[in-house]
Amino acid sequence: MRRKEFSINEEREIEQFLSGMSFGFLGTVGEDGYPRVTPLNYVYDQGVFYFHGSRVGEKMEHLKANPRVSFSVADEFAVIPSYFTDPHLACPATTYFKSVTASGRAVIVQDLAEKAGVFTLLMKKLQPEGGYDPIDIANPTYAARLRNVAVVKIIPDRMSAKFKFGQNLTDDNREQVLCGLEKRGSERDPETARLIREKCPGANSKE
Amino acid sequence: MRRKEFSINEEREIEQFLSGMSFGFLGTVGEDGYPRVTPLNYVYDQGVFYFHGSRVGEKMEHLKANPRVSFSVADEFAVIPSYFTDPHLACPATTYFKSVTASGRAVIVQDLAEKAGVFTLLMKKLQPEGGYDPIDIANPTYAARLRNVAVVKIIPDRMSAKFKFGQNLTDDNREQVLCGLEKRGSERDPETARLIREKCPGANSKE
Repeated sequence: MRRKEFSINEEREIEQFLSGMSFGFLGTVGEDGYPRVTPLNYVYDQGVFYFHGSRVGEKMEHLKANPRVSFSVADEFAVIPSYFTDPHLACPATTYFKSVTASGRAVIVQDLAEKAGVFTLLMKKLQPEGGYDPIDIANPTYAARLRNVAVVKIIPDRMSAKFKFGQNLTDDNREQVLCGLEKRGSERDPETARLIREKCPGANSKE
Repeated sequence: MRRKEFSINEEREIEQFLSGMSFGFLGTVGEDGYPRVTPLNYVYDQGVFYFHGSRVGEKMEHLKANPRVSFSVADEFAVIPSYFTDPHLACPATTYFKSVTASGRAVIVQDLAEKAGVFTLLMKKLQPEGGYDPIDIANPTYAARLRNVAVVKIIPDRMSAKFKFGQNLTDDNREQVLCGLEKRGSERDPETARLIREKCPGANSKE
């Protein structure tokens, strides 16, 4: 399902990012008007997020009273210290990250076969190596378990993505950041440098 | 500042966790009643969260209209595949994680010296190696920058912590999980095994 907000390339990057991350943060609003943020494992499929949980509890009460939700997934790639680009001021200190945030409504999935399909997707994502019997409602143990768990679908109305990798830097500062990352050599620094170059067509293309 | 919900040990673990993590997710509610979740870098100090951002934009509009917020920080240590404990059913598949979620109100920090103090804490956390001039409002460049940025304090009314490391398992299943982690040997598996043993006094104490 293509979203009109994004180009095909952005859409592909968003899907890869959401498939690669294992958990996100659900925002709901209680009847008291207070927001609540809950971290949870999810699967993103065909433009829709799914998660599961207990059938009772505050989060499900919130969703029944007010199905409007927000869902956010973020991954921090690198802390960029100020001294990469400025020997004096702390101001340039920042972090480079990817984040995707959706706003939409939550629908409680009731159909047992649909629930089984969601768990199959969740298992394929979190346990791709297999090692379990297929999740089939003809299996009475699975059917009983599926009846006793809540599955929720989030249908986004709006989605925004922020992939922050120095796009706002001058060419000189970008080279200084690339140089700083190369010297530091933390685990994710090479990946971060690759993303800076990918997102900033003006950047030095040396690999 | 000790919170009555927690024991001294829990309080210490929460503080260590919040100091070690770099970003969390803020939940706000817009005038339209929609929640919004925003990932952001934060610092936790003396029982209060601080973050900074642009003085304009949707998040600040939400906070001015409705200061009630939620803030959540989570870290996933391990995906625990179902076959660690069950050769057939997918049901035992889970993840072990630490999460802390606060509910409270946001206060916009106006005082320039207090803002400078917050940035000093943020820099100490994210750039502990230093490499910048002290953030002092007597420095006119810093003073001008501080005037043009928003700093927000979250004062929690309630705080909850969940450190999920197999506390609900039978002794046999816990041994199977520990054995599975040892065989798998992913980067964080030894740390996860240590936390399982620490949280489950009945667990085999071999190191």
